[in-house]
Amino acid sequence: MTKELDHGRTNAAHGSRIDAYVDRYAARATGMVASEIRALFAVASRPEVVSLAGGMPYVTALPLDLVGELVADLVATRGSVALQYGSGQGDPALREQICEVMRMEGIEAGADDVVVTVGSQQALDLITRIFIDPGDVVLAEGPSYVGALGTFSAYQAKVVHVAMDDQGLIPESLAQTIYALQTAGSRIKFLYTIPTFQNPAGVTLNEVRRRQVLEICQRAGILVVEDNPYGLLGFDGEPLRALRADDAEGVVYLGSFSKTLAPGFRVGWALAPHAVRDKLVLAMESAVLSHSTFTQLAVGQYLTTQPWREQIKAFRELYRERRDALLGALEVLMPDGCTWTRPGGGFFVWMTLPEGLNSKAILPRAVAERVAFVPGTGFYSDGGGARHMRLSYCYPEPDRIREGVRRLAGVIEQELQLRDTFGTGSVPGHAGVDTPGPDLA
Amino acid sequence: MTKELDHGRTNAAHGSRIDAYVDRYAARATGMVASEIRALFAVASRPEVVSLAGGMPYVTALPLDLVGELVADLVATRGSVALQYGSGQGDPALREQICEVMRMEGIEAGADDVVVTVGSQQALDLITRIFIDPGDVVLAEGPSYVGALGTFSAYQAKVVHVAMDDQGLIPESLAQTIYALQTAGSRIKFLYTIPTFQNPAGVTLNEVRRRQVLEICQRAGILVVEDNPYGLLGFDGEPLRALRADDAEGVVYLGSFSKTLAPGFRVGWALAPHAVRDKLVLAMESAVLSHSTFTQLAVGQYLTTQPWREQIKAFRELYRERRDALLGALEVLMPDGCTWTRPGGGFFVWMTLPEGLNSKAILPRAVAERVAFVPGTGFYSDGGGARHMRLSYCYPEPDRIREGVRRLAGVIEQELQLRDTFGTGSVPGHAGVDTPGPDLA
Repeated sequence: MTKELDHGRTNAAHGSRIDAYVDRYAARATGMVASEIRALFAVASRPEVVSLAGGMPYVTALPLDLVGELVADLVATRGSVALQYGSGQGDPALREQICEVMRMEGIEAGADDVVVTVGSQQALDLITRIFIDPGDVVLAEGPSYVGALGTFSAYQAKVVHVAMDDQGLIPESLAQTIYALQTAGSRIKFLYTIPTFQNPAGVTLNEVRRRQVLEICQRAGILVVEDNPYGLLGFDGEPLRALRADDAEGVVYLGSFSKTLAPGFRVGWALAPHAVRDKLVLAMESAVLSHSTFTQLAVGQYLTTQPWREQIKAFRELYRERRDALLGALEVLMPDGCTWTRPGGGFFVWMTLPEGLNSKAILPRAVAERVAFVPGTGFYSDGGGARHMRLSYCYPEPDRIREGVRRLAGVIEQELQLRDTFGTGSVPGHAGVDTPGPDLA
Repeated sequence: MTKELDHGRTNAAHGSRIDAYVDRYAARATGMVASEIRALFAVASRPEVVSLAGGMPYVTALPLDLVGELVADLVATRGSVALQYGSGQGDPALREQICEVMRMEGIEAGADDVVVTVGSQQALDLITRIFIDPGDVVLAEGPSYVGALGTFSAYQAKVVHVAMDDQGLIPESLAQTIYALQTAGSRIKFLYTIPTFQNPAGVTLNEVRRRQVLEICQRAGILVVEDNPYGLLGFDGEPLRALRADDAEGVVYLGSFSKTLAPGFRVGWALAPHAVRDKLVLAMESAVLSHSTFTQLAVGQYLTTQPWREQIKAFRELYRERRDALLGALEVLMPDGCTWTRPGGGFFVWMTLPEGLNSKAILPRAVAERVAFVPGTGFYSDGGGARHMRLSYCYPEPDRIREGVRRLAGVIEQELQLRDTFGTGSVPGHAGVDTPGPDLA
């Protein structure tokens, strides 16, 4: 039928890949372009490649048969609820259980202040949606989580990075940055921080600094968004006290079952002051009506029937062994001039290359040598990070990690030879944004 | 700890319900306020109330034990995939199956152009996100789906309603509206339409008009967003041909398993031209990283192992019986002056009250008499709909539907007596937006 009509709009586009809508998109969408780096990662997902790139938890460690039984039981006995629409705020019983989980980090909160979200990524999206007008400033550690930077960018926020060291965010830098921005008239809407086992840097904000960061933000009237997916995955001692535990009105806390149970359920949450919580629920309904009752009840059933604290301990042991494998191999194999962080938990090591080397330029060669990582530039919104890379130890088994490091060390050795011969290592082929896809976030 | 600090920001808010962030929200969030109508619906969910308000499908009709078995099997045999992160675009096998479902409505499409979303509500949200700048115009039927109006409003779109009659959208009105808006310099971004068994009106766009609507939008260069959750739930004959079946480049099609299987999985989708699809995937990743692999594979497993076409037939018979119960009871019981639509499928009847009556004002009295409906004003963004109400027949059993109509007819009789005595029926107590929650959408 369409052939008979006058296609003022679609003549050029019919059957072609030209975008007929190119001049119709919203301003926020014009920057949404897929990066060249993605094609490389498609190659990197082949089994012969050791991927130190992905942030995927090792879900195979779960008792899959038991999880299968509990979801079957859930559908058979409570199917008419589990398969139905739920409330925008999320299942009340699960919200109670979430409060129990948060209590492990010193948080005292009521289920009424929790909003269940489609992973904590959606909590980030909704917080940004309700607070950010185009041009507003978000403060974030430099480097910071690539998925958060993508969301802030989608709402046209201006991200300003605050320096960190191996004890996390530097309070003096935070105070100076805020002062400079506020003096210049910028509207700072919130500080986005991953204080514990940071992604990608693997560092943790120490206790003294936690108090200082809260105090600085309170004085400046800046909301703190505390993203804490890895807090229960520490390798030493008890979980750290969350920022939210010491400031109920100034902190929005984001949590997730993606790393302590499984990302396939997409169950995360936000804990927020009452008024913010109200807005989050309305934004949630506008975005997806309600989250999947089925997955929410499945997570609730898991928490009720399975020894979840023991499972988290098992995950901790597993990831500690892998971290040790990665750090040990780096120590033995990496050429002089490379440095890296030593995470006390979580999934990631942040490595700094010798001067003159560029991690994005090295990636194609590394993939050819069957090892992958995420270049550092993805974790900065200001072009920083070229000499850095994120190495994940969460997914490959220890022997594979060591083999991956061996391959990567070989590639870096070659790059150093290039540099010493020509004055520089490989240079990146393009300067675009290099946001990896969901499995690498 | 916080007590020792200077709380420039939180003095007023600590321990109180005052919103300390009231001057910090984004412009788009200022209109996000919960409506008074919600408190009423909380009451309406009590078992003694017959709810003709909710749009909840009757999932109890599903073979729950079999669904339980298939999800157990899924976790036990493919758990390491089902519980892991997935791709932003959605599971490739499920996208193939979605194409098979859409073929029932004459759509020929490749899985590569499908994006799986968190219900079709999220598809709506993402489409709006990539196309709408504040002030842009969205055309929509008057009345239209309350959840869509909420999303458009959240992105600060201006919704302009186009008149419809019992054959759906009126092409002449569409053409005139477009002409007037474009002449006035408005940027019309898309037409949002539910052509088949419309929510809330229950009417269906006839075949001649389908061609006309497509032609008008093509000539004017306006994208059509075809929302089709009910298309397979027709009571007579074969499914209608979708608009998308006749225009692959000018239509974004939104589909859902919420009504043909179950809303608790939150699996919907968008089928879009290539370039728009690319933007949708990037917006999806920014919003939630990826949808739940677990629920996607569960839906895929259901489609693979269960007689899903037969199940849809069973749903059709069930809903046809309930529609007949509702229409029959309205015919017998409603006072003169009430009129209503006669849906050929889907979930909803749209009723018009006699002059001088206001459906929002009647709602509290109706709830006191143990029957609930959704007032018409929620389905208009311009204050229209006061004399209308949406009656859903999808959830209550036929006898309950008849009882609900009996109660409602009694309330309307009383209102008519009020009107005849005082010149008007009850008047609404407030003039706010009355958006109901997710289970009523």
